[in-house]
Amino acid sequence: MKTTEFREFHTPTSGIFFRAKRRVFSEKTPFQKMEVYETASHGRVLLLDGLVQTTEKDEFFYHEMLVHPAMMSHPRPRDVLIIGGGDGGALREVLRHLIRGAVLVEIDARVIEVCWKYFPGLAASFGDKRAEIVVDDGNRFIRETDRRFDIILVDSSDPVGPSAVLHQQAFYAALKRRLRPGGVIAAQAGAPLFHLEHLRKKRLFLQRLFSFALYYLGPVPTYPGGLWCYAFLSDRVDPRKSLRKKAPKKLKYYNSDVHRSAFALPEFLKDRPLR
Amino acid sequence: MKTTEFREFHTPTSGIFFRAKRRVFSEKTPFQKMEVYETASHGRVLLLDGLVQTTEKDEFFYHEMLVHPAMMSHPRPRDVLIIGGGDGGALREVLRHLIRGAVLVEIDARVIEVCWKYFPGLAASFGDKRAEIVVDDGNRFIRETDRRFDIILVDSSDPVGPSAVLHQQAFYAALKRRLRPGGVIAAQAGAPLFHLEHLRKKRLFLQRLFSFALYYLGPVPTYPGGLWCYAFLSDRVDPRKSLRKKAPKKLKYYNSDVHRSAFALPEFLKDRPLR
Repeated sequence: MKTTEFREFHTPTSGIFFRAKRRVFSEKTPFQKMEVYETASHGRVLLLDGLVQTTEKDEFFYHEMLVHPAMMSHPRPRDVLIIGGGDGGALREVLRHLIRGAVLVEIDARVIEVCWKYFPGLAASFGDKRAEIVVDDGNRFIRETDRRFDIILVDSSDPVGPSAVLHQQAFYAALKRRLRPGGVIAAQAGAPLFHLEHLRKKRLFLQRLFSFALYYLGPVPTYPGGLWCYAFLSDRVDPRKSLRKKAPKKLKYYNSDVHRSAFALPEFLKDRPLR
Repeated sequence: MKTTEFREFHTPTSGIFFRAKRRVFSEKTPFQKMEVYETASHGRVLLLDGLVQTTEKDEFFYHEMLVHPAMMSHPRPRDVLIIGGGDGGALREVLRHLIRGAVLVEIDARVIEVCWKYFPGLAASFGDKRAEIVVDDGNRFIRETDRRFDIILVDSSDPVGPSAVLHQQAFYAALKRRLRPGGVIAAQAGAPLFHLEHLRKKRLFLQRLFSFALYYLGPVPTYPGGLWCYAFLSDRVDPRKSLRKKAPKKLKYYNSDVHRSAFALPEFLKDRPLR
């Protein structure tokens, strides 16, 4: 069978490869290069600027761990904001909870349209009555809106390209102003193995901004290093102590044991006292 | 710069690749094909029959998590047996503890000799006075010896090729006969993402053999799926409750938080009641 191979470098000299059945979509949007491949091993795979964003096979690791630790730590989340997340996977997980509404702010309308077509398992959530889709720059939205949220999820791409600003202190300070009292932020934070120095510096400003600024971990097999880091941020909620009882049903990764254990950091990522 | 590329398939159509600086060793031993590559990204990489066994960069994940949960759960481990582990990494971790002696039984003498030369960071432990190196078939050794151990570690390769027998019920029953009362076995068990059915079946016979038969997890970036599964087996020791206070110093991954959290299994790997 004819195949089309693509690869992602995780270091300058190593990475992952896929022999796809075919490329089903390719386009240069105003923001990035977007490709969708059909693979035998991972189902459909979404690439932005050549980097794997989502695969049908393993997206649940990432989306469940971005969403549920925050949602399950908050005593009563009603209004949720998602920055980025144009594939719909985070929104799908948010809508498993009894919430009033979720606003998703994605900068690139083409991501939403293309995922709606090629990733129905993720993007079907766009049709939910509780979902409000806004096509806008998340950084601008957060500075201009006067709405407040119980939960804010930052489902950005990595700190290069259009998402760079979503990894900086000013952005997190702006997010904090849009939180209701007792609110919680969860943000994807990168690969501990490849961005360790970045994570250490980021923790310093996050800890200045929030009473609880904790990293937590979960596996994402197709992301660099296979292990992914998220940030949990709140002034009132300690996710190691606050946890509602009933998690949504039919999850594949997250449960209350996983929740508690995700905050146990390995030696190389431990929060050392400042000297 | 000229590079030599090698790859490992994790599925029939996907996997990882390395652009190595050069292949520094290659030999067909009586048991397997053995290669060592020098890479910019992962240091030296050992392949057996084309599968990545160890890289200098990320071997600590695997070796710390194979060894320390068992060693730290046992109140006073004195005598340790390692089946396989010819690269020396597991032995190095064992010898961080105050033990009387460790026996390492490796079937392929060439693995020991070649790792002694090319992986000094792992294999230097072979020179320790407490270490006894036996070149033998682990399955035969365990049936013929009359020695008993507090800890037995199974550092085998995957359930194909020469290691297949080390994944079967009869082997674990034989291991159990070589345990002192209160002894503990830890064994590498495979990739939860790719060997899920195998793991489920194996758990059934392990639970028949041992009062405590628990899977636990840890990341290993260069192994298939990035997430690795180990089995903890004992008739007396529950690793979730029994944990000595002082872990060895200078570890990179393992600590007491990691120990407790490693036994929290995700939904897809949960132990369901039998119907």
